[in-house]
Formats: sequence, structure tokens, C-alpha cells
Amino acid sequence: MRLLANGVSVKVTVSLLAATCMATAAAAQLPPEARTVRAEVRAWRERNEVPIVRELVELLAIPNLATDSVNIRRNAEWLVRALERRGVAARLLEVEGSPPAVFGSLDVPGASRTIVLYAHYDGQPVDTSEWTSHPWRPVLRSGPLDRSPRELPLVPEGGRYDPEWRLFARSAGDDKSPIIAALAALDALRESGRRPTVNLRFFLEGEEERGSQHLRAMLTRHAGLLRGADAWVFLDGPVHQSRRHQLVLGVRGVAGFQITVYGPNRALHSGHYGNWAPNPALLLAHLVASMRDPDGRILIDGFYSDVRPPGPAEREALRAFPDVDPVLRAELGLAASEAGNAPNAERILLPALNVQGLSAGRTGALTTNAIQAEATASFDFRLVPEQTPARLRELVVAHLARQGYHVVTEEPDSATRSRYPRIARLVWRGGYPATRIALDHPAVRSLAAAIEPALDQPLLRLPTSGGSLPMHHFVEVLGAPLITFPIVNHDNSQHGPNENLRLRNLWDGIELLAVLLARLGAVWQPQS
Amino acid sequence: MRLLANGVSVKVTVSLLAATCMATAAAAQLPPEARTVRAEVRAWRERNEVPIVRELVELLAIPNLATDSVNIRRNAEWLVRALERRGVAARLLEVEGSPPAVFGSLDVPGASRTIVLYAHYDGQPVDTSEWTSHPWRPVLRSGPLDRSPRELPLVPEGGRYDPEWRLFARSAGDDKSPIIAALAALDALRESGRRPTVNLRFFLEGEEERGSQHLRAMLTRHAGLLRGADAWVFLDGPVHQSRRHQLVLGVRGVAGFQITVYGPNRALHSGHYGNWAPNPALLLAHLVASMRDPDGRILIDGFYSDVRPPGPAEREALRAFPDVDPVLRAELGLAASEAGNAPNAERILLPALNVQGLSAGRTGALTTNAIQAEATASFDFRLVPEQTPARLRELVVAHLARQGYHVVTEEPDSATRSRYPRIARLVWRGGYPATRIALDHPAVRSLAAAIEPALDQPLLRLPTSGGSLPMHHFVEVLGAPLITFPIVNHDNSQHGPNENLRLRNLWDGIELLAVLLARLGAVWQPQS
Repeated sequence: MRLLANGVSVKVTVSLLAATCMATAAAAQLPPEARTVRAEVRAWRERNEVPIVRELVELLAIPNLATDSVNIRRNAEWLVRALERRGVAARLLEVEGSPPAVFGSLDVPGASRTIVLYAHYDGQPVDTSEWTSHPWRPVLRSGPLDRSPRELPLVPEGGRYDPEWRLFARSAGDDKSPIIAALAALDALRESGRRPTVNLRFFLEGEEERGSQHLRAMLTRHAGLLRGADAWVFLDGPVHQSRRHQLVLGVRGVAGFQITVYGPNRALHSGHYGNWAPNPALLLAHLVASMRDPDGRILIDGFYSDVRPPGPAEREALRAFPDVDPVLRAELGLAASEAGNAPNAERILLPALNVQGLSAGRTGALTTNAIQAEATASFDFRLVPEQTPARLRELVVAHLARQGYHVVTEEPDSATRSRYPRIARLVWRGGYPATRIALDHPAVRSLAAAIEPALDQPLLRLPTSGGSLPMHHFVEVLGAPLITFPIVNHDNSQHGPNENLRLRNLWDGIELLAVLLARLGAVWQPQS
Repeated sequence: MRLLANGVSVKVTVSLLAATCMATAAAAQLPPEARTVRAEVRAWRERNEVPIVRELVELLAIPNLATDSVNIRRNAEWLVRALERRGVAARLLEVEGSPPAVFGSLDVPGASRTIVLYAHYDGQPVDTSEWTSHPWRPVLRSGPLDRSPRELPLVPEGGRYDPEWRLFARSAGDDKSPIIAALAALDALRESGRRPTVNLRFFLEGEEERGSQHLRAMLTRHAGLLRGADAWVFLDGPVHQSRRHQLVLGVRGVAGFQITVYGPNRALHSGHYGNWAPNPALLLAHLVASMRDPDGRILIDGFYSDVRPPGPAEREALRAFPDVDPVLRAELGLAASEAGNAPNAERILLPALNVQGLSAGRTGALTTNAIQAEATASFDFRLVPEQTPARLRELVVAHLARQGYHVVTEEPDSATRSRYPRIARLVWRGGYPATRIALDHPAVRSLAAAIEPALDQPLLRLPTSGGSLPMHHFVEVLGAPLITFPIVNHDNSQHGPNENLRLRNLWDGIELLAVLLARLGAVWQPQS
């Protein structure tokens, strides 16, 4: 049986099958002890910090904008060679107009499970004027920039690094370091006389920071290579702000849109026409207020009928998290957060309607005594399973109609304006659904079982991240269960200037990925 | 007895007294027949069009920005000389930092009534690049600019002008032409062997277009000269859009303000913090919606308790107006105006709350997926008698408090932000009350009785203009009843580029002002 044609919907069946087979599995292959593996890998790492950092610096030094077609390919070719040096069969996957993806494959004799490690090698655009040092000339410093760190030689005397030192470069945090960590984990296992217990694939994307415009085409064209994995492990994003390790089991979907409502076809003097000409800014305020209450409850009819409510398992998982909300509120100058200070992590399990922007005329010194011709609000929905952008579009159109609006998608012409007293122009900015894998999914349980015994504190399980990524492509095209296992520091200035990696996170990442690869196949119940 | 210490509150008493004395008054002085006077003045005008236009051109050629202290004084001195040529004793009235006002005085033997003619000689700022010809080099054209007119010599062959020709220059409409019309009316009466039947004062303001910043000081300092008139006749603004003549009996007051509400102290990712961080744009929408309904009803508790509702006389006066609303709606692309197409003129009798602008983050291509740090709405109230800005400020503060807001006037500091879940910063932009004189006020009845018999169609009486002017200073400082009698064309591009006067309006203005001056003292019942 192929595990999970759809990562979500067949989980109960799989779970039952898995339980039946567990005794046999455990007998078949005893997993190596987690702390033993971690200690061996740490010892290897302590002897090899200089070459590990050297390899990371070499990769970080290759400019990696997805739009820079020459350099982005240099990254990809460098990665193919790096994989091949570890005995991983590697090649470029291509679709027209896209940076290549790097695909690697390492089969392990006797392994019955296959996982794909995902990372992306492209990085966010840079404004070099905002950087303290050049984004593609990696610099080592004794700590984060706000602690006035010393700049250090890339190769330190004695060949050892203080783990609090940081390497500054574009993609040091997001997302080249996890690639190096995985490669080093393979080296460490080999040098320790161990090997992975799962078949291993690499899928390294080259345009994630540009919106993964060709991802779907890439997955579809190369589905033969990519389909059939037991899990995709995303090495992306940061560990928890408390520096504890976590698995992230989902992302919210997103659907951005904009509504413009109309008044007179030119701005009018508010004295001569106030109380007579419809005021679009006022109408917009009523419309926005009709859509969501101040505590986040969405007032659009039928909105919650597609929403899978968070269950007790998810709430339980959240209780394991350190409560960072009070600190966050203090830092952000908030006397209270929405819904009576309900925890952020719980709130993120619910769909959200966010007003991103409002504009009508001017405010401040440029205010004019006018009734404006139009007023616009931009929004995003954040979606949870099982909501779809298509269904939301229907609900919003129906809501606008119930509020008395004639809905258009283009700027209304004068015939339309003269015909309908209330006109709303509704423009969508794409959108995609959420993905979320259940806490008791076998892939989640197996990953946790592989890693957790190597940790000093329990592994956190975040049911969903608040942000949105187009992970649905993997689910829809490949039927893959997705789990994110971040390794980099949360304070890495991701996407901003002076992006950086705290070396301790790289060391931990190497150790934990090695533990994962060494144990996963053995802790995971065998396939039927 | 001095008529009208307060133009509004003693009107009934005066009316009763007046009725008692009317028979005597009529016997004492028979008014000259209106059409006879008008015909005489017209005949004079037809012989004198060139010198009338020449005098207007000379005045229009003097740049008249209130901020241009040298030129503005040249205007004032030109006006003193022009008045003195007519036997009007003239002088400049000064207060520090202000352009001078021009005061003129002409007493008429036997006259028992005194009126002040008000106009302003300063003009709106100009952007010469938007003008077809230079704003202070008057040009005569054969019609409005959108009819591709011919440019004509300022002195035409034969010495006669087509009355549809237009003179283009800053202040040709607003507000130098009415001054020339009044001066020419004096000339015409003298040449016809007539004289005014009222004592005449001129008060010509020099900074109206800059907001009359020194007007109150000017009226207060020179109250000895200015107090005691039976009426102030404002020669400003345009005739009705139908080109019919009107008296305008009031203006709305105004009170502008701005509300800013706060979220986190920096913009936050709407995925990670949506549903948790308070969204100021959403809160602002709810707040705006709580203040006014889509049909103009103001929802602030206690708002209407100070409002004098329009009476049957005012509604009756409005019924005489041509119904321009359907044309206006068509021109403005409106399928409907507020409150079920209720007439604009009636709606203007009510106070209004107008949203002028909204801003929060960005919309359109610059939208970001963020919860903004703040959101701002700017508003104006348009006031009717007896509302005061001071009382409105109290009502708005109380409304904000009822909506759960802590009200501040400055940017809140971090201690304030951390203490109050809802903070609204409320900033007022000044404000002043409405003025309105009753339709049956003796001054209104007398002005109408003087002018109306010279017209082909009934004189319109507009209870109030929608716009706001600080006329309350005249009422408060001088106790003066104010009536506006506009003469210029409505399509004069007032305040904009290519401001212009239709000559027919100047001719009519001269004739009607002459009729007014010749008849007013005789039709107005004598003082007790």
C-alpha cells in the first residue's frame, strides 16, 4: 500500500493499519539509541567545524536571486556536486522560465521508507545599502549586530568556533544553512560507521523567495521522480522563539482581495454636497464593519461552515509551548490582544480576515473638505483546512450582494454607475488553501519518535504556522504529507538586511538531522 | 431702538413693531418703480460699457494674493480712490499682520436705514501653468473655454459687448466684479438723477481667500465704525445654476477633525498575527460606522438636541427652486443620492458628518500583508443653528468613550499604549458655528421687496448655503443681520484656473444693485 494518496483524509485508516503492524516492525530493526548517535555526531562535528563552515561560506558566496539566471544556476550546479560527493545521485530538474530545482537520490539497502528533504537555495532580494557587510561576502561576528559584535576571521585560531558566533550573509538563515546541515549529517553518519535507515531524496527549490511561480509545473512534470515519499521534511523557517525545537504541521492558506466602493464620479465639496452625495469612505467603513467584528469573528454568512475546528489534540499540543504572548504584547505596546488575550497559537488555528489597508482621499495636512469619488480597502483571508479560495469568493460576493452592492470586477463605466446605487469592485489577488497534517499522523509520530529522545526538552508540535506558503501544491500534485522541521535561529533577520545564522543552530541541526536519518526508518512501523 | 443686537433672536419683536409703523412709512417716501429704475440704469450702462469694463480690467490687473503684501495694498489703495471718485468717504482699516480692509461711507440726507456692502478684493492662489492666459492679465473671450471661444480686443469696435462674452482673470468671478458693479450702480443712479435711499457703507476685505485670519480682530477694533447697520449685504458667490437671482440667508458652520486609532507599535505580518494583534483599520471602520449611517443620520448620542429643525417656511422657499438634482445626479454618475433622493437643498438644512479621508497602510499594488500600526480618518461636521463646535467636541469625546476608547490629543507614548486596549487620538481643526437669518426677517423682506419687482422671474430665497464661511464673526461682534446677494455666473471657475465673468452677469448686477439702492430705504418700514 502506498502511504497517503492524500495526507489528510486517509490518516485514520493508516493509523489503524500501523498499529496492527507495530510489534513486527520493532522486532525487525532496533533503532540506534538517540543520545548515542547525537554524541558521536557532535564529536565528529567538533573535529570538523572548519570544513563545515568553509563549505557553508562557499555556498553563501554565490549570489542567489531567482531572477539572476546565471548565478542561480551556479548555485544549483554547486549543489549537484556537493550531493554527488556524498554519493547522492543528483541532477537538475528543469521547467521553462524557472531556475532549476536540484534533485538528489540516495537509496539505502533494506530501507522501506522514503523521505524527501526540501529546502530552497534562492534568497530574498537585497538592498546592499542597508547591510553592514556585503550580503554575498559572508562575515563571522561574535554575536548579533545589536550587541556590537567583533568581526572575526572565518577560520579561527585553534579551529573551534564559539557556538554563539554568527555568520552573516543572505540565506544564512533562509535557507542555505539547512542544506549544509543535511550534507554534514550524511558525512557524520558515514564517519561514525552508520547510515540512514530511510531512502533519501533531496528537492532543493530555486525560486521560493520569488513566489514559487513554476513550482506546480516542476512537481507535475517530474512527478514520476517525486511521488511516493512517505514524508516531505521541510527544512525551512526558524525554531521557536524560546530556541526549542519544533515540528510545524501546517500553514494557513491565503486569499488576498480588494474592495473599492464608489461615490460621485469626481470629488465634491463636502459643504455643498454633504448629506446628499453618497460618501464612499463612510460606505466602506460600514462594509468593512459588516465583515468582521473587533474580536476577529467573521460575520460573513456561511463562513464557518467549511472550517475544521481545532480539536483537543491541537489545543493539548499548544499547551506545551512557552507562553510568549505577554512578552510580545509588551514589546508591541499592546495593552491587550484580541478576544480577551486568547493565545496567539490558538488564534492561528482559526481563519482570519485582516484589513491590510484603507484609502480614500487624504488625511493629515493634505485633507481636503471633500466627499471622495471612491474608497478602497485591501484584505487578506488566512485559511484553515477545509476552506478553499473558490468557496470564499462565492461567500464574499454573496455578502456584498446582501449589503446592497452590485459587484463588478472592473472599474465601473458611467452606465453602470448611473444604474446601481451601490457598486463594489472586487479584485482577488490569487490565493491557495491551507495544509495541515494531523498530530497523530504516522509521519508526525515517527519523526517525533526519531528526534525527541535526543533533546533535553520535549519537542514542540505546532499544529500550524500563521503564515502562508503554497504547500498545497505538494499535497495536490504528489499526495505528500508535509512536516516542517526548522533548525535556524528565530532572530536570523530572515528576508531583511544582515541575515545571519547562529552557529549553535547549525551544530544542533547537523546532530538532529543525523539522529533523524539514523533512526527514522527503524522507529517507523513497516509498510504493509 | 437699534435694530437687531442679535439678528436672529429679536426678529419677532421687530416684525411686530414694523407692522405697526408700515402705513406711516409708505406714506413718507414712495419707492421709485423698479422697472423704471432698471431701464434707466440699463440705458446708462449701454452707453458706458467700455469705461465700466476698463475700470474692472484695471482692478483685475493688480495681483491680489493676501500674502503679497505690496500688491494687496495696491488693490486697497486703488479701491479707496475709486470710492472717493464717487463721493464715498474712504479709508483703510488696519490690524497688525493683515492686509487692510477698505471702508467707505456715504450718508444720504433723509435716509433712516444703513446697509453695508461686503465684498473681498483678494483672490485664491494661482498656478499659472494651468491657466490659458495669465491670471492677472485680463482677456476677453467670446464664451466659456469649453466652447473654443475667440479671443477679443478689450475694447470692441462700436463700444458694445455681446453679453455672453466673458472676461478671464483671477477674481473676475470671486470677488472683484461685484465691487465694480456697486461702483457703477452709484454712477448710474447719479447720472439718472437718482440717489440711494439708504446710508451706504462699504467693507471690502483683503484676506477672505486666506481664511479671514484677522477678520475678528478687524471687526472688533473697528466696531465703532461698523456696528449699527440694518443689514450687511454680501456681494459674493454665484447666482443659482439656473441663472436666476437669489438671496442666500445663511451658511453652515464647520468643525473638522481627525481620529487615529492604534494597533501594535509596528506593522505585523498578517499571517502570524492576524486574529491576535488588534487591527486598527478594522477598529476604525467600526468606529466610523458607529458615528453615521449610510443615509446621513448621525448616530452620536445627543447630536440632534442642539439642532434647530427646518420649518415649513424654509421648505416652502425651497419649492420655488428649479429641481437641478436629477441633472446633477446624471452629471455625477450617481444612480441615487442619499436618503432616497431627498432634495440637496433640503439635506443642506440638516447637519452633516462627512468622512473626508481614510488611511491605513496601502492599497493597490503597494498593499502589504500586514496589520498596520495605526489607521486614520478625517472628518468634517457641517453645522446648522444652534450647534456649536464646543458642544460637538464634547459629544464626540463622549461617543469615543462609549465605544471603549481612551481619548488622547497627542501621539500616545508607550506607557499609554500599554495601558489602554483602545486608544483614539482626536485632533480638531478649529471650527465655527452656522449663521442663518429667518425668511421673514425684515431685512430679507425689504431686500426682496426692493429687488424682486425688477426681475422677470421670482427672486429665490435659499435658507442656507451648504458651504461654510466665518460669517458668525459679523453676528457675534457686530450683531449684524447678513444676507448674501450674488451676481456672478455659477460657471465662473471660482478658485480654479481660468476664472471668468460672463458680462451679462455684470450688467444685471449693476442694474439690480442700482434698483436695490434706489428702493431699499423706501420699501423698508421706518424705525420706531
